[in-house]
Amino acid sequence: MDDTASPTQRNHRDAALRDRARQVIPGGLWGHLNAANLPAGYPQYFARAEGCRLWDVDGREVVDFMCAWGPVVLGHHHPAVEEAARRQAALGDCMNGPAPVLVDLAEMLVATIPHAAWCLLEKNGTDATTACVTIARAGTGRRKVLVARGSYHGAVPWCSPSLAGVTAEDRAHIAYYDYNDVASAQAAAEQAKGDLAAIIVTAFRHDMARALELPDPAFAQALRDICDREGAALILDDVRAGFRLDLGGSWETVGVRPDLAAYSKAIANGHALAAVTGAERFREAVTKVYTTGSFWCAAVPMAAALATLQELHRIDGPARMRAMGERLRKGLDALSARHGVTIRQSGPAQMPLVLFEGDEGFRLGNAFCSAALEAGAYFHPRHNMFLSCAHTEADIDRALQAADAGFAAVARLG
Amino acid sequence: MDDTASPTQRNHRDAALRDRARQVIPGGLWGHLNAANLPAGYPQYFARAEGCRLWDVDGREVVDFMCAWGPVVLGHHHPAVEEAARRQAALGDCMNGPAPVLVDLAEMLVATIPHAAWCLLEKNGTDATTACVTIARAGTGRRKVLVARGSYHGAVPWCSPSLAGVTAEDRAHIAYYDYNDVASAQAAAEQAKGDLAAIIVTAFRHDMARALELPDPAFAQALRDICDREGAALILDDVRAGFRLDLGGSWETVGVRPDLAAYSKAIANGHALAAVTGAERFREAVTKVYTTGSFWCAAVPMAAALATLQELHRIDGPARMRAMGERLRKGLDALSARHGVTIRQSGPAQMPLVLFEGDEGFRLGNAFCSAALEAGAYFHPRHNMFLSCAHTEADIDRALQAADAGFAAVARLG
Repeated sequence: MDDTASPTQRNHRDAALRDRARQVIPGGLWGHLNAANLPAGYPQYFARAEGCRLWDVDGREVVDFMCAWGPVVLGHHHPAVEEAARRQAALGDCMNGPAPVLVDLAEMLVATIPHAAWCLLEKNGTDATTACVTIARAGTGRRKVLVARGSYHGAVPWCSPSLAGVTAEDRAHIAYYDYNDVASAQAAAEQAKGDLAAIIVTAFRHDMARALELPDPAFAQALRDICDREGAALILDDVRAGFRLDLGGSWETVGVRPDLAAYSKAIANGHALAAVTGAERFREAVTKVYTTGSFWCAAVPMAAALATLQELHRIDGPARMRAMGERLRKGLDALSARHGVTIRQSGPAQMPLVLFEGDEGFRLGNAFCSAALEAGAYFHPRHNMFLSCAHTEADIDRALQAADAGFAAVARLG
Repeated sequence: MDDTASPTQRNHRDAALRDRARQVIPGGLWGHLNAANLPAGYPQYFARAEGCRLWDVDGREVVDFMCAWGPVVLGHHHPAVEEAARRQAALGDCMNGPAPVLVDLAEMLVATIPHAAWCLLEKNGTDATTACVTIARAGTGRRKVLVARGSYHGAVPWCSPSLAGVTAEDRAHIAYYDYNDVASAQAAAEQAKGDLAAIIVTAFRHDMARALELPDPAFAQALRDICDREGAALILDDVRAGFRLDLGGSWETVGVRPDLAAYSKAIANGHALAAVTGAERFREAVTKVYTTGSFWCAAVPMAAALATLQELHRIDGPARMRAMGERLRKGLDALSARHGVTIRQSGPAQMPLVLFEGDEGFRLGNAFCSAALEAGAYFHPRHNMFLSCAHTEADIDRALQAADAGFAAVARLG
């Protein structure tokens, strides 16, 4: 969606960096942050960040609703988190073993997350989901893992959204069910009977490019019942939603506790960390699985995580993000109605998605986002967004002004 | 190997932390840094680090020869690296896309590593080796990957040293050859004929608990020839040795260039980063594979990596580490002879290993290490060690004094 000034003119520093990057990075950038997947005008490169604001390399400031796609839960440069990180960095980070903060953080995770008797720490969400699957197999002596069709659990062969470089054997023991469909889960479990190691499930249905769906409590309970009956592990993939919906784990909202859970993203407010939490029953299995990484004992991200969790507890982060998300949602509803544009909002208020009615090829969503970006708010047309605790009422109101420009652009498209 | 004071008395803060950790972390700690695998008296927890020195939580200072098992290549708190990291952190770290430093770093990697036309950045060594295998399969449309028996390539099911939680299918297309054995590699390639995607090989043979072996140049060339003839990818796993032996990649030392290479550990002097570098031929395949992580665009580790590589170039880091490693080796030879103890030193001088002749169960190696630790040097009895550019002649001489105590302990056992 190009406006009068071409993106190249508006984003000339960004364009120059993209030209250089194209030479030395295939496709310009790997993975989910590749701006080639974003509407016209979106920058690829960022110069700085503060709270819920981002500045791109061409100097434009936006109120951000992606939060680095989740990690930034308290806002960039949160003083308590960065002070804790600096204090630990002054002592040591990556040493021959952990610093004492490991124990403080592990105790905090176990105290915060009701199903957890223990934890492991890693670097990527994929490290955590893969470890959960491996631990479930080691603990049950079985192979089959049920995955909801279309759910994202990471970027390695057993679960990657792309099949390039993936062999059939990489998924030989993965079977599929449909999210919120009890019968499909029961049927898949029946097929796997006697060899069912685990069911893995995301906190809510947050597949790209379709309305988000909260988990039906009866569905969540049915997965729990299947796992209990079959002796399998219920794995909650809370990588994306963890610490935004409920500090005890996102399925506390539906009263169902997993055996194993995967966390990452928001756990350390942008510092690289992931975690597996687990029930007593799987403790021994963990000691048999070999899972490690060069930076998994680094102390600075652990200090940042401890400070992040303390702050989220202190201010009731999930409630604050929910309130700001609801303010945004209400404002978007009112503005869209005023412009005669029909939108569908979905998902938890802390992780909202805005879709446009009958929007083939995301033409309307892209127009909305491009115009809103130009007017100062960074929304996403197809992926769930993320609120942070740094978003204030004033930030939401500022973003709604930008959304007003976005809806006007959509209305002009007719 | 207990001396007069029991480790519990000497390490009482460490012991208290281990007791707490045992409750909330299965086995006390995951992976390679678990002190349960170390000789008596070794601490699990560290209070601080500076240059090549470490202080454990009970206040004892050692000259360190593990460098966090590789990452710390310039020494802890290297001023240029930490200044670059701080400058970037003050701007932004984990944002909706990379900072400009990504392009500077990618260009630097491609300029430094002769086989590289492009790079990808990740967090773990395992991310990089797994991406190499997946890219090789995507680029060749084939499945088989040859791995040297006993080589470590990471901690996920296709390559983990433990089979707990691993299914037969996870390794269905992995076949094995013997390091430095051309005939075994040719035979394995023959078996895989028509379906050979890649041969993966470590920079030198650095399997735990046996003498290290440098690559025979004829062996390296034979792997290159097989890959050329079969249209497969030669993957150099340079995670452990990268940036210590040769800044252009460790097989520059034998004149053989890979198609894909995996880096991590030393790349950012302890900040969490990994990289894949690749030849032009595999550029398109990369764009089809989906490989990403929540923190893979974080700017601070990239700024640290750029400063690390600049400094390694400026001071010729590999030559400096080699000189200090040779001083250590020469000193150890002289001391062991003086004590009438027969040792076998192996590996590149920058990554040495010391084994004791006829040392069943590592009784002598453990005694050496425990006594040397008590006297102020942190060695490892079974795993290759790591020099850093922070080791000075005075540090080596200080460590040799400690080694003297170690050899005396061995001689007493003799």
